[in-house]
Amino acid sequence: MEKEKMIYEGKAKKVYSTNDADKVIVEYKDDATAFDGEKKGQITEKGRLNAKISTILFELLEDNGIPTHLIEKINETDVLVKKLDIILVEVVMRNVAAGSLAKRLGLEEGTRLNKPVLEFYYKDDDLGDPMINRYHVYAEELATKKQLDQISKLAFKINDILVEFLADKGIDLIDFKLEFGTDNKGKIYLGDEISPDTCRFWDTKTQKKLDKDRFRRDLGEVEGAYHEIVRRLEK
Amino acid sequence: MEKEKMIYEGKAKKVYSTNDADKVIVEYKDDATAFDGEKKGQITEKGRLNAKISTILFELLEDNGIPTHLIEKINETDVLVKKLDIILVEVVMRNVAAGSLAKRLGLEEGTRLNKPVLEFYYKDDDLGDPMINRYHVYAEELATKKQLDQISKLAFKINDILVEFLADKGIDLIDFKLEFGTDNKGKIYLGDEISPDTCRFWDTKTQKKLDKDRFRRDLGEVEGAYHEIVRRLEK
Ligand SMILES: Nc1ncnc2c1ncn2[C@@H]1O[C@H](COP(=O)(O)OP(=O)(O)O)[C@@H](O)[C@H]1O
Ligand SMILES: Nc1ncnc2c1ncn2[C@@H]1O[C@H](COP(=O)(O)OP(=O)(O)O)[C@@H](O)[C@H]1O
Ligand SMILES: [Mg+2]
Ligand SMILES: [Mg+2]
Repeated sequence: MEKEKMIYEGKAKKVYSTNDADKVIVEYKDDATAFDGEKKGQITEKGRLNAKISTILFELLEDNGIPTHLIEKINETDVLVKKLDIILVEVVMRNVAAGSLAKRLGLEEGTRLNKPVLEFYYKDDDLGDPMINRYHVYAEELATKKQLDQISKLAFKINDILVEFLADKGIDLIDFKLEFGTDNKGKIYLGDEISPDTCRFWDTKTQKKLDKDRFRRDLGEVEGAYHEIVRRLEK
Repeated sequence: MEKEKMIYEGKAKKVYSTNDADKVIVEYKDDATAFDGEKKGQITEKGRLNAKISTILFELLEDNGIPTHLIEKINETDVLVKKLDIILVEVVMRNVAAGSLAKRLGLEEGTRLNKPVLEFYYKDDDLGDPMINRYHVYAEELATKKQLDQISKLAFKINDILVEFLADKGIDLIDFKLEFGTDNKGKIYLGDEISPDTCRFWDTKTQKKLDKDRFRRDLGEVEGAYHEIVRRLEK
């Protein structure tokens, strides 16, 4: 399967049409952005590393019964996936307070939540991806109740699968963002990516951050963190 | 029933104990604040007017089967109510986009929502009353699932009752904030107040604001708006 035309260039990936209308190729870029695109940079080899990490995690999820868009990895940076209509509701799952949640609830970063927390965000760069709830989703007709119930259930299940898998690799899954979409029959699949760009991964022993927070917060050793995640997942 | 000791002074009201441990007296003040207390002022006669407005609306709700804390109005500014343990989750109901919702969703103020929108906020001045969802409530143990279900159901019902009643007075109910609490048996009641301080009321014909936004946004004729609401409710 070959790239035909670039149909979308996002902040971290490009999406290409193929000769099959139901399939697209996602190309992972080295570009990194943070704070609604205010901070921009490059992380050497990020495209290659995230394509690898995301593919390993999507295969894991498929093996555990989660419907995902993954078809196959084509080369170092390119992945063939089912073309989805992306639901404009991003789902964030959290096991430990960090980032905006720590701020929102006045919790120290690193505070374990007694139950996983699910949040919805409106995928809209112009609005700064605001946090929303079910009723906002209905008012804006971003998804139906049935779809929200289904993606919430999938998100909790995905969290369980990832937490267990990563714990075994010495990685604490602090939080992560998911995107879902529908195929031409309306069936829901997990789309987009799961990588250090979209997750908080902390080393279990040292609690060292192994994710994009190293870039966001200028903590140094950014590439090293992405490499470390690949090493652990391939172990 | 007489005031014994002031047990709490809030931004808009004082709460006094009485010789009955299950009852408190709420005294409405003329003080007005906005933007997390950053803006401060006085609205002449607000205490008296809000005590009257809130009592009329609580009586209406009681008559329509909503359990409220109201026992009886004692004098111009003081109301005797059941003492509640206030649940620290404020409930906002919205029929038309305004204020933070208009900003959040990028909607023009005045856009009618195709369905009422319910929002939860964490009642915490230090955190700036952040918007939260069910999972935040569970994580922080602010309320149980059963309590959230119950107060959500009550909030939708209260919205229906108020919208219909106010429409008849030429007032559009744009949005409003509710607080609930439990008595010593754990039974849930509507507490706090319903007034131009806690609602957006727009004149149906002219769409003129008849609420605290006149104070927040320096629109002038602030007292006039509160007086107008009393006049219409007494009509
Ligand atoms: N299977 C898919 N089909 C179609 N679009 C997808 C699929 N998976 C992800 N996308 C979308 O492709 C884009 C990926 O590029 P990205 O750089 O992440 O964009 P953005 O800047 O919008 O986050 C995103 O908009 C994402 O929603
Ligand atoms: N029935 C009740 N029993 C006990 N406390 C109540 C009751 N109704 C309202 N309250 C609380 O009394 C206070 C009223 O004062 P207010 O000026 O509104 O305070 P605040 O600045 O905290 O909003 C609020 O904290 C409110 O939650
Ligand atoms: Mg993206
Ligand atoms: Mg108050």
